[in-house]
Amino acid sequence: MARTADSGKLPATAWAVLGILSFGEEMTGYAIRQWADHVLRFFYWSPAMSQIYSELKRLERLGYAVSRAAVADDGRGKQVYTITEPGRAALAEWAAHAPVEPPVLKHGPMLRAWLGHLSSPELLREQLEEHRSDAERTRAEAEYSQSVSAQVPGWAYPELVTRWATRYYTAQRDLADRMLADLDDLARREDGQGEPEPERIPNGS
Amino acid sequence: MARTADSGKLPATAWAVLGILSFGEEMTGYAIRQWADHVLRFFYWSPAMSQIYSELKRLERLGYAVSRAAVADDGRGKQVYTITEPGRAALAEWAAHAPVEPPVLKHGPMLRAWLGHLSSPELLREQLEEHRSDAERTRAEAEYSQSVSAQVPGWAYPELVTRWATRYYTAQRDLADRMLADLDDLARREDGQGEPEPERIPNGS
Repeated sequence: MARTADSGKLPATAWAVLGILSFGEEMTGYAIRQWADHVLRFFYWSPAMSQIYSELKRLERLGYAVSRAAVADDGRGKQVYTITEPGRAALAEWAAHAPVEPPVLKHGPMLRAWLGHLSSPELLREQLEEHRSDAERTRAEAEYSQSVSAQVPGWAYPELVTRWATRYYTAQRDLADRMLADLDDLARREDGQGEPEPERIPNGS
Repeated sequence: MARTADSGKLPATAWAVLGILSFGEEMTGYAIRQWADHVLRFFYWSPAMSQIYSELKRLERLGYAVSRAAVADDGRGKQVYTITEPGRAALAEWAAHAPVEPPVLKHGPMLRAWLGHLSSPELLREQLEEHRSDAERTRAEAEYSQSVSAQVPGWAYPELVTRWATRYYTAQRDLADRMLADLDDLARREDGQGEPEPERIPNGS
């Protein structure tokens, strides 16, 4: 089965685009991007249009999606995409049997905090406060997406993951608050005020 | 200043390697990898040895690190690296003034949960339980790293970020538990047991 062999090499982003089509609607590349921005970006990915079009091309080549020319409301031409039955079968096969990729986290603000010895407490605090407000904004956006998902028939799973995302960004916000409090403690200890922890008292070398 | 222009193009991974050297020890590439595995991987990155060596080569070329041949305990040769003063200055400049990269999350298990309509509740539960136990294992590892960091003089910031990481993976574990509970609710609702939520009752189309 050449098709299965090909699909085995597809990156997760191709499956994500096919996944958006698997909810059943005929969609333009632009609508796919909007979908990604409203749901997928909270836990996976916020793709560029060019990436969406190159994935759609690949999915068409594999016979997993088909497209047709249509006319938009404003009279301009547009290309709309639909998942095919082989596409749906391949996606279901992937979802069920491909090894689940472990979560990948690249946390810029923590990379800076780790280098706190090269920075100043004020600057670090500023960077963390910005991260804190980004997390709060994303939390509110995820919550809104969750409330929208709850209204759409057939969107039980998008609702489930946007609910997870709302909690995730709540946790991000709260962890930033706790680190800000830890930074205050650290500053107090370094100022020699408050109680130093036993292991922080230098003894010997 | 040509050097500053060059360093402006360095990827965050180069700064991360230089950051490890900035804690002051002379280190082999292997020791740098161990450092990354014990601290950085919880929030940023678990590099391959080849990536570390290519970053070290680049840092030497820029004059940010120097190396010398040394003899290991077992009598074999080894190459050890040290940060230079220009390296420390460039890193401090980056930490203070380069825009902080927003956190990037690619959450494989959530990508699968989002496609729950193509899977089975049993399989989804299995994938989530595996994610849950990965998160718990990573939480315990981060906690251990935190306890080690607390003992090392000059490691206040590594301790700070491993403490954050311990809390982060605690949250990951707990969010997986809450999603497992949500999945149970969903299964009950789809079985027609329990109270359906008002917006789930189809009315009209």
